[in-house]
Amino acid sequence: MQKKNVPSYAAKSASGQLSPLLIHRRDVGENDVSIDIKYCGICHTDIHFAKNDLGVTSYPFVPGHEIVGVVTAVGKKVKKFKEGELVGVGCMVDSCKECNSCMENTEQFCEKGMTMTYNSPDLISGGMTYGGYSKKIVVNQHFVLKVSKDLEPQRVAPLLCAGITTYSPLNKFNIKKGDKVGIIGLGGLGHLGIKFANAMGADVIMITSSKDKCEDAINLGAKDVILSSDEKQIKKNINNFDLLLNTIPSDHNVTKYLQILKPQKIMVVVGLANISIHTRSLLFGRNQIIGSLIGGLKETQEMLNFAAKNNIVADIEMIDAKDINATFKKIEKNKVKYRAVIDIESI
Amino acid sequence: MQKKNVPSYAAKSASGQLSPLLIHRRDVGENDVSIDIKYCGICHTDIHFAKNDLGVTSYPFVPGHEIVGVVTAVGKKVKKFKEGELVGVGCMVDSCKECNSCMENTEQFCEKGMTMTYNSPDLISGGMTYGGYSKKIVVNQHFVLKVSKDLEPQRVAPLLCAGITTYSPLNKFNIKKGDKVGIIGLGGLGHLGIKFANAMGADVIMITSSKDKCEDAINLGAKDVILSSDEKQIKKNINNFDLLLNTIPSDHNVTKYLQILKPQKIMVVVGLANISIHTRSLLFGRNQIIGSLIGGLKETQEMLNFAAKNNIVADIEMIDAKDINATFKKIEKNKVKYRAVIDIESI
Repeated sequence: MQKKNVPSYAAKSASGQLSPLLIHRRDVGENDVSIDIKYCGICHTDIHFAKNDLGVTSYPFVPGHEIVGVVTAVGKKVKKFKEGELVGVGCMVDSCKECNSCMENTEQFCEKGMTMTYNSPDLISGGMTYGGYSKKIVVNQHFVLKVSKDLEPQRVAPLLCAGITTYSPLNKFNIKKGDKVGIIGLGGLGHLGIKFANAMGADVIMITSSKDKCEDAINLGAKDVILSSDEKQIKKNINNFDLLLNTIPSDHNVTKYLQILKPQKIMVVVGLANISIHTRSLLFGRNQIIGSLIGGLKETQEMLNFAAKNNIVADIEMIDAKDINATFKKIEKNKVKYRAVIDIESI
Repeated sequence: MQKKNVPSYAAKSASGQLSPLLIHRRDVGENDVSIDIKYCGICHTDIHFAKNDLGVTSYPFVPGHEIVGVVTAVGKKVKKFKEGELVGVGCMVDSCKECNSCMENTEQFCEKGMTMTYNSPDLISGGMTYGGYSKKIVVNQHFVLKVSKDLEPQRVAPLLCAGITTYSPLNKFNIKKGDKVGIIGLGGLGHLGIKFANAMGADVIMITSSKDKCEDAINLGAKDVILSSDEKQIKKNINNFDLLLNTIPSDHNVTKYLQILKPQKIMVVVGLANISIHTRSLLFGRNQIIGSLIGGLKETQEMLNFAAKNNIVADIEMIDAKDINATFKKIEKNKVKYRAVIDIESI
């Protein structure tokens, strides 16, 4: 089934360095959309997989699941997209489309397992999937999203993962005018959390451990900032929040954050990390901890439409492909404001 | 306001040893019920307070909040109780009765703070509250519960804390015939969790780290036992449970337990402890962690009625007052099956 070789110069070998590599993209099937990739955001997950932090990376490996590009060809059963259109691809490129989760538009929980945009067995080609640090991708139409021409496409790319990850829980828990929402952690996810919660009408407070991020948080739309290291500021906010969106990507204790939730409210966690809690905040505060994982295709399209309507895009640093390795290091030091995006033309 | 001294011989001084002590019980006010205590269960919380583990114990101190006794006098506004009746008192003896939480029958979350049965400022007498390791207690009628004569009263005592703690979440999450419920930890709470979940019609599985508790769990009504230390048994049960009731009273990691929950289901924690989790089980499994704290008075009466109807009482070891210190040590070693109850006659 692998008939065509499309070169990618951003693939990562097991040596841990990015290096030129020829990867295979399948032919355009009757339900497929072929896309010339223009921009691809760098998600922290890309780094985890590139470094095989989860022990599941299959090399050679091409990361990238925040993809914006232009349709170059469509299969004969594709009616929704046509050549020249601006489209996006996020974290998934396939699923069974038949199970309860798929039927309920939560393909990320496909009972047979979603096909991730990279490092997943490709059920159609029989090979592996390769991500967006690459010039081209071929994707089943169900997993292709329409991108508005009204937004800068390079700044839309991060919405495909960081955007839906923060939009989905805010949407699911019905955040509305007057709700007090705390966004914990100001990075790629957190800065979009501020923008989405703001657009939904909430009073948004940034909760961060970094003093030097306070000004940025206000500029991004936060009404106020709580320094999480300052016990006085935490104490002043006890029983004050309707929802907390915890975007911290590293191990941490959440007990102090739970204190600032009103009773019977929710902390949503969206980062992969070990968290610890003293259960008194769950028992006496009646708070809940719930996880949220990206969003289904229907909700991702709604998020993109909401972003277009409310002029929400990511704050980005554009980089050339040659700078990917250096940028990985910068991201690990939390020094990127707030998402690095690869200009695929530079490959 | 403190006009009467009633001696108690089970009070704990700051030295950490139980010793004779005169404690003050207030006079019987118009809304009060005076109770001769017959039996008092020993809850692990009593030990935490006696040892000042939480740093909030005010000495002299009398523990005990699993109280069954007989009414000896009632105030003139008390119509619900009369002399000679068998009654119970649990973890609370007062609250504001006016806030939203009180109006919603969740007095344990009184916005002004519930008055605990021991170690709380008594809003009526102006002194402190003293618990049930004592011959007598005077309690506002709203916080007194009717106890069926059909059950052995000494075995009812532990229902007042351990019983409602396990009944409430099973009731709140509507456990019914056919639900698969896992009770984690076999102690005072866990053994009542098995009985209540069984009576609600669930398939109850005990999840324990102790091989030597397996037979007991089955005898108590569990359909099967999962040894939590055996990875194979955990793996065999992935996505298998509708609810987990986690009664572990010490620090632990809950990641492996979350794996055995079906998607979008709940682990209820009822023990005070530090817990840790890898968030992948929350993100990919869509599970929730929720705390539950005893229950309000209405629900506690419902629990006692349910227990009477279904013949549910605690498995206990009766002890004399002189053995309290030794029993504390036995409880700390998890060697009591499954609740120690003080015969107050022995004081």
